[in-house]
Amino acid sequence: MSAADALTQKIRGAIPLSEAMRFTIDHLEPGEIRVSAPLEPNINIHGTGFAGSIYSVAILTGWALCTHILDDAGVDAELVVGGAEISYRAPVTSDLECRCGAADDEREAFLAGVRERGKGRLSLEITVGDLPQARLQATFVAIARD
Amino acid sequence: MSAADALTQKIRGAIPLSEAMRFTIDHLEPGEIRVSAPLEPNINIHGTGFAGSIYSVAILTGWALCTHILDDAGVDAELVVGGAEISYRAPVTSDLECRCGAADDEREAFLAGVRERGKGRLSLEITVGDLPQARLQATFVAIARD
Repeated sequence: MSAADALTQKIRGAIPLSEAMRFTIDHLEPGEIRVSAPLEPNINIHGTGFAGSIYSVAILTGWALCTHILDDAGVDAELVVGGAEISYRAPVTSDLECRCGAADDEREAFLAGVRERGKGRLSLEITVGDLPQARLQATFVAIARD
Repeated sequence: MSAADALTQKIRGAIPLSEAMRFTIDHLEPGEIRVSAPLEPNINIHGTGFAGSIYSVAILTGWALCTHILDDAGVDAELVVGGAEISYRAPVTSDLECRCGAADDEREAFLAGVRERGKGRLSLEITVGDLPQARLQATFVAIARD
């Protein structure tokens, strides 16, 4: 099983809302992730993407990338969301597609924080759609496990 | 049926994710709303409240209050989320409970915008839990229907 499929399965098994949204990781490497979810279970009252689904798929995209960065480096840490800001620019009228990347130096600083001080932070920008229709800035905090 | 029950039913029927989260409006008047959702369908990988569920229940709390303000005033408008910022302070370990209020002058300015210029904005703070465990600042935009 690919790393993308394994992490999709882990997230879907542990987070019921991700299963309801049909969250799927399509591409996964430490520097880049692409995720999708069909529109139909994620619609709002106007028949376009629900603001809460857009946020939830995007925040899970960032969370999954951070998890993969930690796993790939063999670092055992608990990962939580510190805070996030989202802007919605246009309605999402097709499947939700999220992208997020992390540069080498950002990943190194994140891992060094966990290894050397027991806590690392990574701020990521996740885009939704090609325009993009929405943009999420989120900060993830990893705390080393004893 | 109470206004709270009617709006809960309308939201649950139109937004599949709100049904999956078991979103329920407990109290509804133009100046104040209280909402709840059980923890179990909204857990994350740590068994506490999932960041996406917390955001989604909170944003629907604000959306429902704005909808009720418009309905109560007999104003027909399309309501969308412009943007939002959320901070997470502590894990949510029991049912999700959201609260939000809007003062008389804020509601009047929102309604006046829609009536006089075709567009009104309302910025709301929604709290989650008693601490509160999370705090969402969100801006809603109502656009008058022809």
